[in-house]
Amino acid sequence: MNIDMIRAAAARLNGHARRTPLLNSPFIDDIAGRRVWIKPECLQHTGSFKYRGAWSALSALDADTRAKGVIAFSSGNHAQGVALAAAQHDVPSVIIMPADAPALKLANTRALGAEVITYDRATEDRDAIGDRLAAERGLTLIKPFDEPQVIAGQGTVGLEIAADAKAQGIKTADVLVCCGGGGLTSGIALALEADAPGLRARPAEPEGFDDVKRSLAVGTIQRNDRTSGNICDAIITPAPGQLTFPIMHRLCGPGLAVSEDEALQAVAQAFLRLKLVAEPGGAVALAAALSRKDEIEGDDVIVVISGGNVDAPIFARALAGLV
Amino acid sequence: MNIDMIRAAAARLNGHARRTPLLNSPFIDDIAGRRVWIKPECLQHTGSFKYRGAWSALSALDADTRAKGVIAFSSGNHAQGVALAAAQHDVPSVIIMPADAPALKLANTRALGAEVITYDRATEDRDAIGDRLAAERGLTLIKPFDEPQVIAGQGTVGLEIAADAKAQGIKTADVLVCCGGGGLTSGIALALEADAPGLRARPAEPEGFDDVKRSLAVGTIQRNDRTSGNICDAIITPAPGQLTFPIMHRLCGPGLAVSEDEALQAVAQAFLRLKLVAEPGGAVALAAALSRKDEIEGDDVIVVISGGNVDAPIFARALAGLV
Repeated sequence: MNIDMIRAAAARLNGHARRTPLLNSPFIDDIAGRRVWIKPECLQHTGSFKYRGAWSALSALDADTRAKGVIAFSSGNHAQGVALAAAQHDVPSVIIMPADAPALKLANTRALGAEVITYDRATEDRDAIGDRLAAERGLTLIKPFDEPQVIAGQGTVGLEIAADAKAQGIKTADVLVCCGGGGLTSGIALALEADAPGLRARPAEPEGFDDVKRSLAVGTIQRNDRTSGNICDAIITPAPGQLTFPIMHRLCGPGLAVSEDEALQAVAQAFLRLKLVAEPGGAVALAAALSRKDEIEGDDVIVVISGGNVDAPIFARALAGLV
Repeated sequence: MNIDMIRAAAARLNGHARRTPLLNSPFIDDIAGRRVWIKPECLQHTGSFKYRGAWSALSALDADTRAKGVIAFSSGNHAQGVALAAAQHDVPSVIIMPADAPALKLANTRALGAEVITYDRATEDRDAIGDRLAAERGLTLIKPFDEPQVIAGQGTVGLEIAADAKAQGIKTADVLVCCGGGGLTSGIALALEADAPGLRARPAEPEGFDDVKRSLAVGTIQRNDRTSGNICDAIITPAPGQLTFPIMHRLCGPGLAVSEDEALQAVAQAFLRLKLVAEPGGAVALAAALSRKDEIEGDDVIVVISGGNVDAPIFARALAGLV
């Protein structure tokens, strides 16, 4: 896993992934007490950065392997990224989703061209279903984060941040990244190491699900007690990855953790001041910039809004807090 | 008023206005029955395209005139654009607003650096107040649309659309533009005439407030009976401008008009599929693409989302329609 793989992924993504800008607002700066630069990956295809990793992994496969198709386990943003990238490569995709996943996510994933196979969480083993399908059809598994070409794709976010920070004259800053398994955070950290060594990636997580923060603090992989029951569902994973953690441990600054209310307030500020739709899990980095200012150093901070796939009732709940 | 003024405005705006992209979504395409390309000016500074015209007008003044300050009448997006552009030029701005304007808009305009002077709509004459202040202080009036340098600034949206459409291989398409007094529509029309003659600007308005559509149909300026009482408040003006109408009459295709419900449905689709916050008046062009497909020709249509300054309760009402 190295910077050359990220640059190669960037070349493959060129003309396919959206080149997202760095946005700002004087009102956001006032709340945060410093200049805040927002990288809006909610504007990426399928509404999250996951499209980058999916396209990177698909495009890195040799043509014969790819032609047989790909498979992924996901009820969320990774599913949509893989489905769209596979459709654009004109190859089949199979997404294994729980039968009780939200109807809209099932419908969206199908509409993006995937074959969706549902399983019963209580009685069926999704890995066994996936293994059988992969063997029968020769499908390649696209893991959500612990996979080099996926990390390389997410790392292209870091290359863009490095270039845009340089253009703005930002030499030193924390870069806060919404963090689940660490694919995005580790990819960005590698890109910054090469192209903007004065910028430092730091993972942001929900309180109570801060496995990466705790892992970085003690130097070994720590797990979450639970993997559900938080509004930031998109970025909740059991533990950092075997590939992603060593990278984060070597390169990242301390983690930050925010409450559900703070995440919802950040969703509301993104609506009010940036005209962006962020999902709660995609807003934890912005929440950290707004609510944890004493834990951040410097005149500038850069935050990634990692996704915007939020259900309308939850978004309405965030807006209600504005009144 | 000519293309050279728009190109000069683009040069002055370079590095100040945001260069917004063209976005799309396969889900939006499905509803519209053709490819839909969205120009998200809600992502512009202050949440609307108005910043472009304001910066263009401010930057075109000679330095001595500008140093005395500027004045504008507006309770909405033009106010915020002028306030920010003046602050960035380090010159004073005075915005005349009705005393019963929403508290948030008053607060925002002040926070952006303007001196806000309120008047009583029932008992005071805002023009008299403005004339007196302008004379006393030597302030220059920045009109919201019927002013060449304002039209030139808004026209830079059209230059960007022309360049991005060419990059996408789009040779012919209707370009639907949310239209109030016609500053944005006429500016875009002039830019397209020069740089993309196969693209045709068409104004989109709320039903019952379609003065521009009716004016284009008969060839002379028609007025609206009312100028309030519609959720698309941002784009409701009494009549097209003396400068903007002749340009639109020469260059634009027929107007389109949509209902309040259709505007709210477009707000909801922008939330769901594009992760953008659009205000109802800023979404009428998208609404026309989604709801008036029989009135549009070609495989591609380009729509401008002109602003995103919507109050949370109205946005929540749009989202409620999704369930």
